[in-house]
Amino acid sequence: MSVLRVGHRPGRDPRLTTHVALAARAFGARRMFLHPADDRLAETIASVARRWGGEFAVVPVDDWKSLVRSFPGAVVHLTMYGLPLATSLPRIARHAKVLLVVGGAKVPPELYRSATYNVAVGHQPHSEVAAVAVTLERLLGLPRPVRSGEAPQRIVPSARGKKVVGARRHR
Amino acid sequence: MSVLRVGHRPGRDPRLTTHVALAARAFGARRMFLHPADDRLAETIASVARRWGGEFAVVPVDDWKSLVRSFPGAVVHLTMYGLPLATSLPRIARHAKVLLVVGGAKVPPELYRSATYNVAVGHQPHSEVAAVAVTLERLLGLPRPVRSGEAPQRIVPSARGKKVVGARRHR
Repeated sequence: MSVLRVGHRPGRDPRLTTHVALAARAFGARRMFLHPADDRLAETIASVARRWGGEFAVVPVDDWKSLVRSFPGAVVHLTMYGLPLATSLPRIARHAKVLLVVGGAKVPPELYRSATYNVAVGHQPHSEVAAVAVTLERLLGLPRPVRSGEAPQRIVPSARGKKVVGARRHR
Repeated sequence: MSVLRVGHRPGRDPRLTTHVALAARAFGARRMFLHPADDRLAETIASVARRWGGEFAVVPVDDWKSLVRSFPGAVVHLTMYGLPLATSLPRIARHAKVLLVVGGAKVPPELYRSATYNVAVGHQPHSEVAAVAVTLERLLGLPRPVRSGEAPQRIVPSARGKKVVGARRHR
């Protein structure tokens, strides 16, 4: 399961695209392809992965159209104009490899044609962060707490307050 | 179902908090309480609701602690340090009224004590947008397409391209 974010605007969108990447990672994607590249954002996410574990990485992409065309699986374009996620899920789940694509402010019309599925997570204006998180959650389920030894630092779920194991003191 | 966003930084977070509000609206919340107030953001969301229908509004809150203390239902603080959402859901769903609370960069420790439940949508750094969307989706289900006549403009789900009914040409 991978995510492709197109139309990123470095310098304008860093926090929003960072949230897309963090949601992709937290909800079980392996990587987020990013066009155009943003080294600083990729390093922010790499530092999260170093501390919190896992293999997730932000991968810069020059030619996203070629990535979409050659992707060996389902290309799922998340757009509020698409077909309902609820009815599309069974078909998407049949594919071994899935690439979820989210656009920025202006989505190139070509994406609507080249995607395997155009899918709406609700037909209202919302958020690419929400769309990625909810789609991954519906495909993979809710993430489970990390087990001991799986990451340099991890959270111990607690009813009140914060419990982190393995964290360095000055984060 | 309502959302409370605390620790908003007007001027720094407008897009991210806008996405929290849009996700709250799209996934079925009635309102988002916002502290501190942000008139411009509230107006952005009001204009979305005027065009796309529904009663959702951003409500400014001066004293969020009092809102949390006096809320007549479950106050669910979404934090990566809390108990797993999967195991908390049945208890949350028993309450007729639910207030989902998301913090900003610095969450006041008091919130951990005054919340009815501290709940983690995955125990990894991710996004308040994702947390709100996924929690609402797990409580209320995926949003359905709007029916004819329910809103000034609405999307007709389509496999390719964009179909909007009732939209003015120059949006």
